[in-house]
Amino acid sequence: MREIVIGGAQLGAIQKSDSRETVVRRMLALLEQARQQGCELVVFPELALTTFFPRWYMEDQREVDTWFEREMPNEATRPLFDFSREHGIAITFGYAELTPEGHHYNTSVLTDRQGNIIGKYRKVHLPGHVEFDTGRDFQHLEKRYFEPGDLGFPTWENQDTVIGMCICNDRRWPETYRVMGLQGVELVTLGYNTPSINSQKRGEGEQQRLFHSELCMQAGAYQNATWVVGVAKAGVEDGFPLMGGSVIVDPNGFVVARAKGQDDELIVHRCDMDLCNFGKTTIFDFARHRRIEHYGIITRQTGVRRP
Amino acid sequence: MREIVIGGAQLGAIQKSDSRETVVRRMLALLEQARQQGCELVVFPELALTTFFPRWYMEDQREVDTWFEREMPNEATRPLFDFSREHGIAITFGYAELTPEGHHYNTSVLTDRQGNIIGKYRKVHLPGHVEFDTGRDFQHLEKRYFEPGDLGFPTWENQDTVIGMCICNDRRWPETYRVMGLQGVELVTLGYNTPSINSQKRGEGEQQRLFHSELCMQAGAYQNATWVVGVAKAGVEDGFPLMGGSVIVDPNGFVVARAKGQDDELIVHRCDMDLCNFGKTTIFDFARHRRIEHYGIITRQTGVRRP
Repeated sequence: MREIVIGGAQLGAIQKSDSRETVVRRMLALLEQARQQGCELVVFPELALTTFFPRWYMEDQREVDTWFEREMPNEATRPLFDFSREHGIAITFGYAELTPEGHHYNTSVLTDRQGNIIGKYRKVHLPGHVEFDTGRDFQHLEKRYFEPGDLGFPTWENQDTVIGMCICNDRRWPETYRVMGLQGVELVTLGYNTPSINSQKRGEGEQQRLFHSELCMQAGAYQNATWVVGVAKAGVEDGFPLMGGSVIVDPNGFVVARAKGQDDELIVHRCDMDLCNFGKTTIFDFARHRRIEHYGIITRQTGVRRP
Repeated sequence: MREIVIGGAQLGAIQKSDSRETVVRRMLALLEQARQQGCELVVFPELALTTFFPRWYMEDQREVDTWFEREMPNEATRPLFDFSREHGIAITFGYAELTPEGHHYNTSVLTDRQGNIIGKYRKVHLPGHVEFDTGRDFQHLEKRYFEPGDLGFPTWENQDTVIGMCICNDRRWPETYRVMGLQGVELVTLGYNTPSINSQKRGEGEQQRLFHSELCMQAGAYQNATWVVGVAKAGVEDGFPLMGGSVIVDPNGFVVARAKGQDDELIVHRCDMDLCNFGKTTIFDFARHRRIEHYGIITRQTGVRRP
């Protein structure tokens, strides 16, 4: 058996005024819980170090850039990597990345159990919009502050497992899981910041949004015979509610662990990577069953063309 | 509003010895129920005219061919098309197709409300195997008796709606829905014959298999903002149980109608095609959000290549 004890470290609200140092202290407290429960890998949410700043409209790029990290690790986050190294716990978390060349990405990193960064992913499917939108109850300006990721959906072999990452809205797109599935992925980690209400449809509340989130992760897990660990930043940030519902989903699509609240909360499951084998060798043995000659428009055509 | 009252006409077991005429009489009885309930389109299952013959190992091609239809409509099925024309009810059902050129397909047809065939689909994702497999509790020889469909996933505009079809195992593949989604599909109809037990994993019983079936249809519906109508052939055929669970799924991924039993049973829902509009213009507005530059291996690569 190839088992990894995985922790999903949900974070509660981070207010606009909270410093990175404050947040990292909360993350370290979750890591300490994870250590006590024997975790070997801990998954933190998207943009884990700050409030979900894309809800705020900003015109001054200098102000925007204050939400970004210019290097990783940096002074504020070094204690996370130190903890990883000292206790043999791999970690993954999201942050806003500003590259030396001036590019802005919604990024996550993955370490090995020695605290070394072994993988980086930059969010491909940016939701939201570029300009202030008066038609929404609140703003979701990811398309304003970030460029689409330029790394595709890479995977890495570590802890005897093929691991991939995606971020938030990526989880709604079957292409995300499939591109990793075609690399034999056995564990997909992802973080999210998902408003509890649809900004364009007030009637769509938290229950429906939790359902959609789980539906996509469960389908992605089953259809690619992979574990999926989805971790929320939850709670009310400066008056704006984010849903919780962090989950660990097994390769059959079943939820095996789920966060109960909207605060800092650790969920843990001992994940047997060999549970991926059955699906990958039978109903989802891609080499035997996929028919790429009929999939052409998936990669040839971005938008809809009616018959 | 663009509404279509849709009936999902689940069929109970069809024994090996049952004639097509017997089955067509049962289908006509369901159509009569559908007429009384105001249905404008009725969806029947995969291989609706016969037992699920791919569970039987046959070496004599003449015997195999007795399960196939050489033309459609034919004498046995003409009453279905007559009923469609007389009562203004479009129908779709599956059958084994033997072409004049000698090709064998697992096929479905769709009519307009005048009983004219306007669309044909040939199953792309054939499950199962070619040779007798002693490792299984029972056989699933679709790869022996059928060729993979050669028509892709076409869609048709009818009843002011973009309609597509798929069959059984196709519903587990996100590519199926996406290829139609990229054509603006608003209604996907499908039939299935799904054994209640996994022939390669006895512990996987009916509840888990119903879950997987619904999970895939719900995800396909939500992620493409389309109605999905999935209709079973159910019940115990010559000792082999098939699951029921026919459903109508709305474009939000919610099941709005579900069959209760495993016999002939009609489920009905008034489906508003305009419910597809919200998803198609917001979170799943493909033109704005898809990033085909990162999907390449989905169409370039059939099987898995590890990192």
